[in-house]
Amino acid sequence: SEERILDDISHRRFNPLTGSWILVSPHRTKRPWQGAQEEPAKSTLPAYDPSCFLCPNNPRATGDVMPDYKSTYIFINDYSAVKEDQPSYSTPPAESSSDLSPLLLQAEAVKGRCYVITFSPSHNLTLADLPQASLLSIIETWTALYTSHLPQDHKYFNTSKSAELGIVSPKEQYTYLQLFENKGSAMGCSNPHPHGQAWCTSSLPTEISTELHNMREYKEKHGRGLLVDYVTLELEKRERIVIENSTWVALCPWWAIWPFELLVLPKREVASLPGLTDEEKGDLAQMLSQCTKRYDNLFKTSFPYSMGIHQAPLDAKEEVEQCYHLHLHFYPPLLRSATVRKFLVGYELLAEPQRDITPEQAALRLRGLDGERTYREEG
Amino acid sequence: SEERILDDISHRRFNPLTGSWILVSPHRTKRPWQGAQEEPAKSTLPAYDPSCFLCPNNPRATGDVMPDYKSTYIFINDYSAVKEDQPSYSTPPAESSSDLSPLLLQAEAVKGRCYVITFSPSHNLTLADLPQASLLSIIETWTALYTSHLPQDHKYFNTSKSAELGIVSPKEQYTYLQLFENKGSAMGCSNPHPHGQAWCTSSLPTEISTELHNMREYKEKHGRGLLVDYVTLELEKRERIVIENSTWVALCPWWAIWPFELLVLPKREVASLPGLTDEEKGDLAQMLSQCTKRYDNLFKTSFPYSMGIHQAPLDAKEEVEQCYHLHLHFYPPLLRSATVRKFLVGYELLAEPQRDITPEQAALRLRGLDGERTYREEG
Ligand SMILES: O=P(O)(O)O[C@H]1O[C@H](CO)[C@@H](O)[C@H](O)[C@H]1O
Ligand SMILES: O=P(O)(O)O[C@H]1O[C@H](CO)[C@@H](O)[C@H](O)[C@H]1O
Repeated sequence: SEERILDDISHRRFNPLTGSWILVSPHRTKRPWQGAQEEPAKSTLPAYDPSCFLCPNNPRATGDVMPDYKSTYIFINDYSAVKEDQPSYSTPPAESSSDLSPLLLQAEAVKGRCYVITFSPSHNLTLADLPQASLLSIIETWTALYTSHLPQDHKYFNTSKSAELGIVSPKEQYTYLQLFENKGSAMGCSNPHPHGQAWCTSSLPTEISTELHNMREYKEKHGRGLLVDYVTLELEKRERIVIENSTWVALCPWWAIWPFELLVLPKREVASLPGLTDEEKGDLAQMLSQCTKRYDNLFKTSFPYSMGIHQAPLDAKEEVEQCYHLHLHFYPPLLRSATVRKFLVGYELLAEPQRDITPEQAALRLRGLDGERTYREEG
Repeated sequence: SEERILDDISHRRFNPLTGSWILVSPHRTKRPWQGAQEEPAKSTLPAYDPSCFLCPNNPRATGDVMPDYKSTYIFINDYSAVKEDQPSYSTPPAESSSDLSPLLLQAEAVKGRCYVITFSPSHNLTLADLPQASLLSIIETWTALYTSHLPQDHKYFNTSKSAELGIVSPKEQYTYLQLFENKGSAMGCSNPHPHGQAWCTSSLPTEISTELHNMREYKEKHGRGLLVDYVTLELEKRERIVIENSTWVALCPWWAIWPFELLVLPKREVASLPGLTDEEKGDLAQMLSQCTKRYDNLFKTSFPYSMGIHQAPLDAKEEVEQCYHLHLHFYPPLLRSATVRKFLVGYELLAEPQRDITPEQAALRLRGLDGERTYREEG
């Protein structure tokens, strides 16, 4: 194909979701590595760890006790990055005509709430180890958090108990809900117990605001959705697709930054989790299972990543609902083996993100791996 | 001051250089840490390491031999991220009216050249250990690389030898020169021998292109330089300044992302290194020395960082020369101690950069440290 020339030349690719460029250096993986090595994964975690803050029946850092939960469990983070109750603030007006502060020292208060969502009571399981039914239950919990319709027996979501605790549902109060998982110490995860996070904020975060802007502009110009067009094109080319089922696709995007980055998206334009049909939720569970199993099988290690869902804001009006296309990003750092990662430092921070293998090469490798069971189950 | 309220509330701040927001969570440093710890620095490196690719007289990975150099030495990276000689490429035109490739699969070839610049023949010294005369010699080398007037006795820059090797000077051939240093394994540095890098590219990297756009827009609107106005304001407020000499300032910028991030800039608007006076070059050497010594003294460790210079493009026309303001960024990852770093993962990658201490708190700590000698010289 025309693009094979890109397998061997340094080039940059354009990301239409963010409107920015990525430098690609396919010939560069041969360089010797005398730098940091990740610790090889200790695969011997116990199913229950008495010192873990997230295992059932254990005390948390602040003294609260985890209940004897059986599948997923949500609670408000004891060290939330955003506060619920705080004074307001906005940039003070100029004190004189020569006062430059309003221009150069701009700030605004951000209220919010952070949740922790445990994926399983077992300390030593990961998404790759969980049955699809458990993954579906995580998806249901994420959806319930978006709509603020969580199970009535849940401490924080039972209407009367919440009222007692003075907790207002995210949908009534906040602008955006960022669902994500940091997995592995290489990605700053501070506890191996399988869990994700959810940060609700009064402001719309930069990344979403940029994506939203670009999706809206594309639709105005072309009359179709940016990601619907992109999926259509990728299904035709079949060079970057890793897995496909009847309603979802997982692919290494044309503009990937991380070595084995994945974009996971429904074939249909759906703005947010509540818009998914039951079939689509089941298919997403399959995607999560297949992607994480393939990742583990790539370097025969519990694969680190940051993963998250981008969807329409909580307070989206119809116009936004009609142009946003929900998707998941997987950002995994490993490059060459279980211990050699890609660092996004120096040039990447100061000038432009840079990658070493092409997305096509990454997709080819991931496609060839087992998505049904991990290397841990073998033999 | 009005801004003290920001010491205790979650808020976001605006970066006028990049046009984006940063989430600040000053109350969050109390959370317990059970995650990754950096290895404590092994401070026992030898002055000469026979297995190092950068020590004088040693063979490099590709077989070339390092000369018996005495101060700085430049050579072309054996594993450059950009290639000099390669076919050209641009996004192919649409094959039919429904072909979406030109829109969604955009790429362009990038030619370039990467240099490695050793800062000293000694394997175990860092910028913080070098005398100011050596730092000045690094600044002179950076400047010479920008103007392509390197010492005539240098293999790669002696005009006749270069011609023999077929090497054209960066200024004649490339658009941008990114000078940077990755220090420490936490910042992906693959060799502790003191060295920096220089990547020249035919394309203008994203970060510079964004800064340039914002500096130009500011000047058109306000008739003054963005960073000149910013320095003026900070010199008045004195809340974020760490060091000042007669021609330069080092400060924790209002919009800092990394915990102890520094912006180092000349008080006068100068577009690129060749525009600096001798006094300014000497003062920059002092800044480099003082900043890196304070960093080392903060957690009594050889402080990791990525550092780089942003300046006008190599091919800048007068109009750009008149609005760009040269500056250095230091991006250091450590947060709480020599072993606990800040991870920019999860929320930061997917939603918005987030920091834990305020820039004012960071500046206060750095200001209180010794900038004349490191903890290693004490006692
Ligand atoms: O060229 P080095 O020092 O081996 O590599 C280091 O710096 C480069 C430029 O920032 C990065 O692309 C690499 O990920 C990093 O490991
Ligand atoms: O909240 P945790 O898991 O302790 O913290 C982790 O995720 C956060 C959200 O991405 C980051 O801000 C932290 O730097 C990281 O260590």
